Amino acid sequence: MRILGIDPGYATIGFGVVDKLTTGLKVVDYGVIETPKNEAIPVRLAILADALTGIIKKYNPDAISVEELFFNTNITTGIKVAQARGVILLCAIKECGHLYEYTPLQIKQALTGNGRADKKQMQYMVKALLRLSEVPKPDDAADALAAAVCHAHTATYKQREA
Amino acid sequence: MRILGIDPGYATIGFGVVDKLTTGLKVVDYGVIETPKNEAIPVRLAILADALTGIIKKYNPDAISVEELFFNTNITTGIKVAQARGVILLCAIKECGHLYEYTPLQIKQALTGNGRADKKQMQYMVKALLRLSEVPKPDDAADALAAAVCHAHTATYKQREA
Repeated sequence: MRILGIDPGYATIGFGVVDKLTTGLKVVDYGVIETPKNEAIPVRLAILADALTGIIKKYNPDAISVEELFFNTNITTGIKVAQARGVILLCAIKECGHLYEYTPLQIKQALTGNGRADKKQMQYMVKALLRLSEVPKPDDAADALAAAVCHAHTATYKQREA
Repeated sequence: MRILGIDPGYATIGFGVVDKLTTGLKVVDYGVIETPKNEAIPVRLAILADALTGIIKKYNPDAISVEELFFNTNITTGIKVAQARGVILLCAIKECGHLYEYTPLQIKQALTGNGRADKKQMQYMVKALLRLSEVPKPDDAADALAAAVCHAHTATYKQREA
């Protein structure tokens, strides 16, 4: 099973592609989509949509795992991120169809057993679980890989339950 | 000039098409897009995208006017509406390219001269300015027509300034 994890944003959008094999998890690719700061938001959303659609077509995932928004105090940024997340959900459902959403707490819980794990602990577990030599950079890519790993683990549990 | 006004939402999305003629404004069509309550949000976003793209293709507007979000106290609803608004902006920029955004205050100001006008006053002015026999229903459609009228008036002023 191939999983594409996505860390939503409007300026920098993390993505991570993970294969779930019988021998464990294997990273296929990861990185970020960046939208130009000097463009208007609708143009940036169109750039995001095109780039993300390209990534989905290229890697053809069986499932897409997207982190849910946790609203912080900055409502203006929150609206922009939510608008971008709407575009991400649209591209995911149109190109793949198998879309799963996890809260930050669920992702932390799945990777570390602790829903309140800090960023450093999360990055350590992403590196360990994916048997990487270094913590993936930038942070948005690591967060996207974490979302992918979360779905890989959750799907395993669901299979075991069945 | 033909203007499509849009009132953003994820359950009910208002639209209103207005032609700006030398003799004044003329309503071409108005109504709402509704997304099924029993479907997941990503599916509803895809239904919204398809329906809105169809409306833009059908009426081929010269400009699209979208109301900006005013965040109320319900953050969960706010995230859902912002996600839908992202999809609306994407469809608008992809299908038309001429996209304008106005705050609720700007729309009220343009229609009534008072940025704090209440809903009843706004609906009265939509009816009067578009020479309709009744207030357009539902409210979301009237709000969308108001966004279209706002752009028609603002564009006029811009032309006069030029």
